[in-house]
Amino acid sequence: MIKQSFQKLGKAAPRYLPILTWSKTYNRQIFSDDLMAAIIVTIMLIPQSLAYALLAGLPAQMGIYASMIPIILYAIFGTSSALAVGPVAVVSLMTAVAIGKVADPGSAEFVTAALTLAFLSGAFLVLLGILRLGFLANFLSHPVISGFITASGILIATSQLKHILGVSAEGHNLPELMASLAHNVQNTNVYTAALGAVALVLLFWIRSGLKPLLQHYRVPSNLAAIAAKTGPVIAVIGTILLAWTFDLSTRGVALIGEIPQGLPPLTLPSFSTTLWRDLIGSAVIISIIGFVESISVAQTLAAKRRQRIDPDQELIGLGAANLGAAFTGGFPVTGGFSRSVVNYDAGARTPAAGAYTAVGLALASLFLTPFIAYLPKATLAATIIVAVLSLVDFSILKKTWHYSKADFAAVCTTLLVTLLFGVELGVIAGVLISLLVHLYNSSRPHIAIVGQVPGTEHYRNILRHKVITQDTILSLRVDESLYFANARFLEDAIAREVAERPPLKHVVLVCAAVNHIDMSALESLEEINDRLNDMNVKLHLSEVKGPVMDRLAGTDFIKKLTGRVFLNHHQAILELSAQQDDSLSSA
Amino acid sequence: MIKQSFQKLGKAAPRYLPILTWSKTYNRQIFSDDLMAAIIVTIMLIPQSLAYALLAGLPAQMGIYASMIPIILYAIFGTSSALAVGPVAVVSLMTAVAIGKVADPGSAEFVTAALTLAFLSGAFLVLLGILRLGFLANFLSHPVISGFITASGILIATSQLKHILGVSAEGHNLPELMASLAHNVQNTNVYTAALGAVALVLLFWIRSGLKPLLQHYRVPSNLAAIAAKTGPVIAVIGTILLAWTFDLSTRGVALIGEIPQGLPPLTLPSFSTTLWRDLIGSAVIISIIGFVESISVAQTLAAKRRQRIDPDQELIGLGAANLGAAFTGGFPVTGGFSRSVVNYDAGARTPAAGAYTAVGLALASLFLTPFIAYLPKATLAATIIVAVLSLVDFSILKKTWHYSKADFAAVCTTLLVTLLFGVELGVIAGVLISLLVHLYNSSRPHIAIVGQVPGTEHYRNILRHKVITQDTILSLRVDESLYFANARFLEDAIAREVAERPPLKHVVLVCAAVNHIDMSALESLEEINDRLNDMNVKLHLSEVKGPVMDRLAGTDFIKKLTGRVFLNHHQAILELSAQQDDSLSSA
Repeated sequence: MIKQSFQKLGKAAPRYLPILTWSKTYNRQIFSDDLMAAIIVTIMLIPQSLAYALLAGLPAQMGIYASMIPIILYAIFGTSSALAVGPVAVVSLMTAVAIGKVADPGSAEFVTAALTLAFLSGAFLVLLGILRLGFLANFLSHPVISGFITASGILIATSQLKHILGVSAEGHNLPELMASLAHNVQNTNVYTAALGAVALVLLFWIRSGLKPLLQHYRVPSNLAAIAAKTGPVIAVIGTILLAWTFDLSTRGVALIGEIPQGLPPLTLPSFSTTLWRDLIGSAVIISIIGFVESISVAQTLAAKRRQRIDPDQELIGLGAANLGAAFTGGFPVTGGFSRSVVNYDAGARTPAAGAYTAVGLALASLFLTPFIAYLPKATLAATIIVAVLSLVDFSILKKTWHYSKADFAAVCTTLLVTLLFGVELGVIAGVLISLLVHLYNSSRPHIAIVGQVPGTEHYRNILRHKVITQDTILSLRVDESLYFANARFLEDAIAREVAERPPLKHVVLVCAAVNHIDMSALESLEEINDRLNDMNVKLHLSEVKGPVMDRLAGTDFIKKLTGRVFLNHHQAILELSAQQDDSLSSA
Repeated sequence: MIKQSFQKLGKAAPRYLPILTWSKTYNRQIFSDDLMAAIIVTIMLIPQSLAYALLAGLPAQMGIYASMIPIILYAIFGTSSALAVGPVAVVSLMTAVAIGKVADPGSAEFVTAALTLAFLSGAFLVLLGILRLGFLANFLSHPVISGFITASGILIATSQLKHILGVSAEGHNLPELMASLAHNVQNTNVYTAALGAVALVLLFWIRSGLKPLLQHYRVPSNLAAIAAKTGPVIAVIGTILLAWTFDLSTRGVALIGEIPQGLPPLTLPSFSTTLWRDLIGSAVIISIIGFVESISVAQTLAAKRRQRIDPDQELIGLGAANLGAAFTGGFPVTGGFSRSVVNYDAGARTPAAGAYTAVGLALASLFLTPFIAYLPKATLAATIIVAVLSLVDFSILKKTWHYSKADFAAVCTTLLVTLLFGVELGVIAGVLISLLVHLYNSSRPHIAIVGQVPGTEHYRNILRHKVITQDTILSLRVDESLYFANARFLEDAIAREVAERPPLKHVVLVCAAVNHIDMSALESLEEINDRLNDMNVKLHLSEVKGPVMDRLAGTDFIKKLTGRVFLNHHQAILELSAQQDDSLSSA
């Protein structure tokens, strides 16, 4: 009995622990590929983790901590071989917004709130994963995500201008940020601004100009691409040297300052129900956004290698990473786009590459902190600005404008609400408008009157094709599932069409496009059947799909249906016309 | 120029003022029919309006006021010839809940809150009507409404038990009400309870036993039906006489007491933004529920006479009625089911019948108030209980259980949330679960592999029919519109099917059931096309509908599509097989 249970556990384990699958085939070659990728990602991750901690308003070392244990936990529970988990721009901004509502930046409560937020996000993600609710992430449509990310990029870049200018500025939306900056711009510190401007120009150039230059000198393309992403490291080293040489802190340039040397501490999130209640909404939004961002990256990279990602297991992987962050001095994390791409390009083959990155960061945390103390905040702000401006992409506006005004409206709303009212309301507005647009579309379904394409068994819209119709038979094709949102519309539409056609004897609903009929629609159909019956018109169905027919069979509607259910529409027309001819000849 | 504008106005007016249409053909016969109906409805409405004011926790006369000006305004702006507008049970309960949150029952603020709630509801309804957003009411599915009405009926009946027992009890949900009743039941007033019990028994008997009895004595059926609905009037007159004769108020029986004699006062809702903010959520919910209830009744009655209701104009009619209530001492109103049916059965032919009812109530308000002072509250409570228990109908549980577990879950959730947490959360839960069920269903669409039914041009599911398929061509029929909620599912499903079929050369997506393709799905299709191309498999579409094809034409997806778009699937199979034979014979 116990043995059986263990065997069962043994079989189920790989499902929940993907590490058991890939570790079996791990060998020296894979190790060396993973290690190479890890070294490159580590170098890139040091300035990034510091920068995103700054963006979240947290002590710099929390960025490093958030990149260590979480990435190891993801390596154990996650399914993507290339995803690099850690602090990312959008989630860090959302963290700042969420914990800014419950505590003052710089206070101990602020740090505890960040840990608690990571804990709640992690718990929520694991819960979704266990309940296999990964499909919920689909409710954010692609255009809405594009709009949200673009707006977030603008917000983040604007929020970092204060570090470039060396002034203070507050605000969680564009008008607040701009007003605050405008108010404080006269306090600009010249040294900070000069250093920030140089860093910005350097970073933009490395990003766009270095790769062509290296390729010009015959450096292989993928090596050149990686080099172009090391810009932040160059900027960091350069400005540390500047700050140290000229003792810039005495000239009012804000530096990171001393940070604790060593491995992540063991921390505890708060278990206060008041704090939980205040943070749970934000935790849910952050989890969903983080998951959507992460799964998109993971799927894109997996597709390139013909691998598959299990969305439900990804929820567990990301959830574990966030729980890890909560207990080791971190803050909410997710799979980042740019570092995952670097990881992939650098040749990472298994999630173990992530674990080696963690070791690299641990070494950095042990030995590099004395140098990092001299790092100007303006440099980090510049790396953030350059990184997030690559997220800003207005092309979605043009694309949706041409394809669908409804999608265009959804993108615009998300963009504007995010910019004007902040990230949380932006996400909520985006989800709501996606749903409303969908419901609006399906609440007024396209209903076509169809006729026979001459010489075929095919029936098409009379408005678009030359087709044969009959006065006594009306064939209506409803191009939508029938459910509560359009049930009443159908009643109206049929009443209207029938009223216009006095000689009518038969209405045939062509159900080829009807994928569900819910209870509301079933009641509407009963109603339609009754009303047509009163007018001496029979109601028939044709081309009803298997799953729909299974459900209809045995309902009152089918029992009371005045007409018949035909497998195909051509047969319906043949038999109904024949009947008519019979009754005519017998009359 | 001015003349043209007036002409234009003259043409548009009947659209917004239906009275201009039906008043043209008004004559003596219609007048006499309407008058007869009005007399019957007035008699029925007097106890009802008093009772619903009691239910809302408001002074009795407000019920009468709410039945006068609103009904006249509806007669001007509404489109139903039989709808009787005034206070109704569910909306009155929701009013009590909403204004109970901002003021203490009995206070002047409580009355002002009721006026303000009517004002906000009215303004919201008019706004929806002008924006032509009547379709929003469809988002409450039939089963959810059934569940909500049943639960509300139980809540209302329970809330009235205190008047029957002559005790006090508070609470907006079943557990609170029951606990409060249990706590106070020892204070029961024997006289009140006896009177209440007699009234209850009498009313139940009149409702169920009187009609068969009258029919037994050859009274015409519709007259007998109307008589059966006059029960409350008999109970009211009987108990007024009892209370007056035995001076029951001295024995602790609660009476309505003196109410102001005369016509409705001119009142003003509050324009405090704080109060508005506190009430607007409730106003929206009450408006939607009221509108859904009203439009269902109006459409049912209109269908019997082959008339049509304009939902957007109904919003304006109900909105005007509520605005009227706000300025003439009333509270939120809507079209009531039972009185509308009585109005219809009694022969009302135009909305003018409603206006005559208002005149009848005005006379009652002038001359009957001295008598009404002696009316025991227990009588009104009994009429409410008998009326709402007819709303309680659990058959929807059985019906949905057999038809669709998802609809069953929606009904149960709505029922339980309403009973346990009150009406407002009940409605919200109902809407949310309707949406979630719909989205969940369409997020995992049915995808069938189809083959040719031998000897026909018809293609059906290979799992359900004996059909012909080919190794190199995979025909997939997606039974759902493609949109953000299922875009990723489609990518996964196609990847899975293709992976299992090495000899595959062509994938044909049969789009007969695809009614929309949104931007998210379009991007997924591009992705699918690219991935299939990498595997040397061509992607084709067949049976794409006109509106969908219009939109696809000119997109990058169609430009990059590796295969073709076929008008019908049979043609696709013929041509793709022919191609293959060619390539085989040339090989």
